[in-house]
Formats: sequence, structure tokens, C-alpha cells
Amino acid sequence: MNIDVPDIVVRRLPIYLRVLRRLQAEGVEETPSHMLAKTLGISAARIRKDFSHFGEFGQQGRGYQVKKLTVELQRILHVDNIWPLVIVGVGQLGHALAMYDGFQENGFRIVALFDNDPAKVGMTVNNVPIQHIDYLEGEIRRHQLQIAVLAVPASQAEAIADRLVAAGIKGILNYANITLRPRPGVIIQQIDPTIILQHMTYYLEQPRN
Amino acid sequence: MNIDVPDIVVRRLPIYLRVLRRLQAEGVEETPSHMLAKTLGISAARIRKDFSHFGEFGQQGRGYQVKKLTVELQRILHVDNIWPLVIVGVGQLGHALAMYDGFQENGFRIVALFDNDPAKVGMTVNNVPIQHIDYLEGEIRRHQLQIAVLAVPASQAEAIADRLVAAGIKGILNYANITLRPRPGVIIQQIDPTIILQHMTYYLEQPRN
Repeated sequence: MNIDVPDIVVRRLPIYLRVLRRLQAEGVEETPSHMLAKTLGISAARIRKDFSHFGEFGQQGRGYQVKKLTVELQRILHVDNIWPLVIVGVGQLGHALAMYDGFQENGFRIVALFDNDPAKVGMTVNNVPIQHIDYLEGEIRRHQLQIAVLAVPASQAEAIADRLVAAGIKGILNYANITLRPRPGVIIQQIDPTIILQHMTYYLEQPRN
Repeated sequence: MNIDVPDIVVRRLPIYLRVLRRLQAEGVEETPSHMLAKTLGISAARIRKDFSHFGEFGQQGRGYQVKKLTVELQRILHVDNIWPLVIVGVGQLGHALAMYDGFQENGFRIVALFDNDPAKVGMTVNNVPIQHIDYLEGEIRRHQLQIAVLAVPASQAEAIADRLVAAGIKGILNYANITLRPRPGVIIQQIDPTIILQHMTYYLEQPRN
């Protein structure tokens, strides 16, 4: 890992990768840097500077080799292999996530689902069985899972996060409406639509109520 | 709007606001800067520097007035009033979003739901009726809505985004598994769990497959 790369650059890499994979799917072999910039809404200079942290991926004035750059980005982001994921909480949101078709194509696979509702245990979503939450730690340890998606009610999120970390989870994607406290050595990211919406409203004019 | 504030700073403000509102709910009136830093996992110096873009919110060595800072951040982010939102697409994900309890407390209210499935039209979610997508533009114009949440299948997302923008929408929160093309004067943010997960895996060790 190159610790000199600013996190803000790392955050853009998955977005670059997404667009490149779309270009590849469309049969595009090479893209001029200004076209990639236009598609992304990010300046060509910014993109070139971001890539420069990892080596040379394009030739000045020639553009980017789509396939080569895609492979490089997948390697840099460690998604050249598939990461197994666990989802904890199979309510409406957890169910929608288990059905989401974007995981596999982007380097992830849901391998286990957990819920505390006995009525759900044994049902399958997208061919993955729902297990009782009692089996959480055992499954994480057995499969050496590193990443968990948390889709439980906010009131249960801290307690479940503790259990996940104790069992060896290193990354938590939190959908619960609560800012989890930091845990050493664990990456916690929250997906909260209102945090993104408040970033948006900063740039919009306040409506008159 | 202060255009000199780096976007990366703006992105952190909603996270600060979230933590401050929690402290306020817990009855905390003042918080030392190092405590706020610890809760957030962001350095006290970074926080102080971020706030300095908007004025002086704390006294060196004394800490932050929780209520005052909360009010200031709400004003800066334009969430001191409530923003009405529309959700387009009431499948499992759209339904879960319509039920999400975090909107109101953070400055947003779902005022309209749309779907193209006649069987869903007339049903209500969280007391908001589902309307047929044919009424989309009329409702947006009538209520001068500026923000839409897009929870439709990826194949329909670009077309619906065109309709939203034509009707006056200025901000789109996109849940569909597609990077929408940029539209002038419109802020488009995508919520894609795999983009956040790929940011996470950059910092994790690749599993052996």
C-alpha cells in the first residue's frame, strides 16, 4: 500500500474504474483523456495527476488504453479477486442489498446473510440462505471474512459492530442511522443518504418554507 | 455561497453536524475540541481548520458550544429549513428509503413517491401516496421540488433523470447501478455500495482466492 496517496485520490479511483468498465463493455479500446474527463465531470489534468501517484497509465496526447487501465485500477484497489461479504440484517434494505446486481461485477460477492428473526432463518435471497445471528461469529471466522455490511436498526448497530470486530471483520459498511464509534484497525464507512443530501444542499438555494 | 471552500471540507460538514446533534440529544452543552476529534476520528487541528472557513466557532482551549455550532452548521448547509424530496421508483430499495427515519431529523421530508407499476399506485408508504410516473413533472413543478432520489432500475435511470431535470430538479441522488452522465447546472450524486467498498479494499489486504 502506498501511504503517500491522499485519501481523496483513492476515493476517486473506484469512480474512474466504473467509467472505464462501462467503456470496455461498449467496446472502446482507447479513450482520449479529454473524453474521459468529460464523461467523469473531472478535469483531464486532475485525472492525470491522480493516476501519476501509481505510475504512467497514458501517453501525453494519446489517451488511455481502456483495458490496461481497468486492470491496473482493479489491482490497485485490490478488487482483482472477489471479496466475500456478509450482510447483517435482512429487512427491506438488507433484502434490497442482497438482490443488488452490482456487487459481483465490481469485485464482491455476498456469501452469508444474518438476521435475528427466526421466521426469516432458512429463507434464501439470491440463493444465499439467511442464518440466525447466533452463527455470525462462527461463519466469519470459518470463512475468514473481512468485510460486513450492516443493515440492522440503529439501536442494535454498535453491539453488532462489536461482535463483527471481535470475530475478525476489518471493514464495516454501515447503513444504520447512527455514526458508529471508531474502532482501532477497522475501517468504518457509513452510507447515509442525508449526509450526501446535505452536501448537495450546500450548493443549492434554500427553499422558502 | 463561499466558493473558496474546498469541496472536501464541505463533505465533512454533514458528518460534524451528525455528531453534534447526537451530543445535543445527549444533553452535552460544550465539547472540548479533542473530544470531538476523538468521536469523529479526525484531528482537532483538521476540524478547527475546516470551521475556520466559515468564521470562529470555538475558543482556543475551551471547546465548542454544541448548540451554537449545530445551528451554524445547519445554516451553512442550508438545512435550517426542511427540503421536500421526491423518490422515483418504489421497489424494495425505494420502499426502504421511504421508511427511513433519518430524513426528517436531518432536514428532509419525502413529499411524493412515483412508480410505473399501476398495481402500486394509490398505496401509501409512511403516509405518502405512490403516484403514477406520468404525474412526475406536474408534481415537481407544482411544488417547485429541487431534489429527487432515483431508485429505478439502471436501464431507466438516464431517461428518468432527463425528465427530472426538464421539470426543474437541481439535485439527483442516484441509487441505480449506473454512472449518470453529467447535466449542466445539476448536482448528481451516486450512492453505490461497491464504490465505497472499493475505497475500503484499497486499505485492506487482498484475500487469497
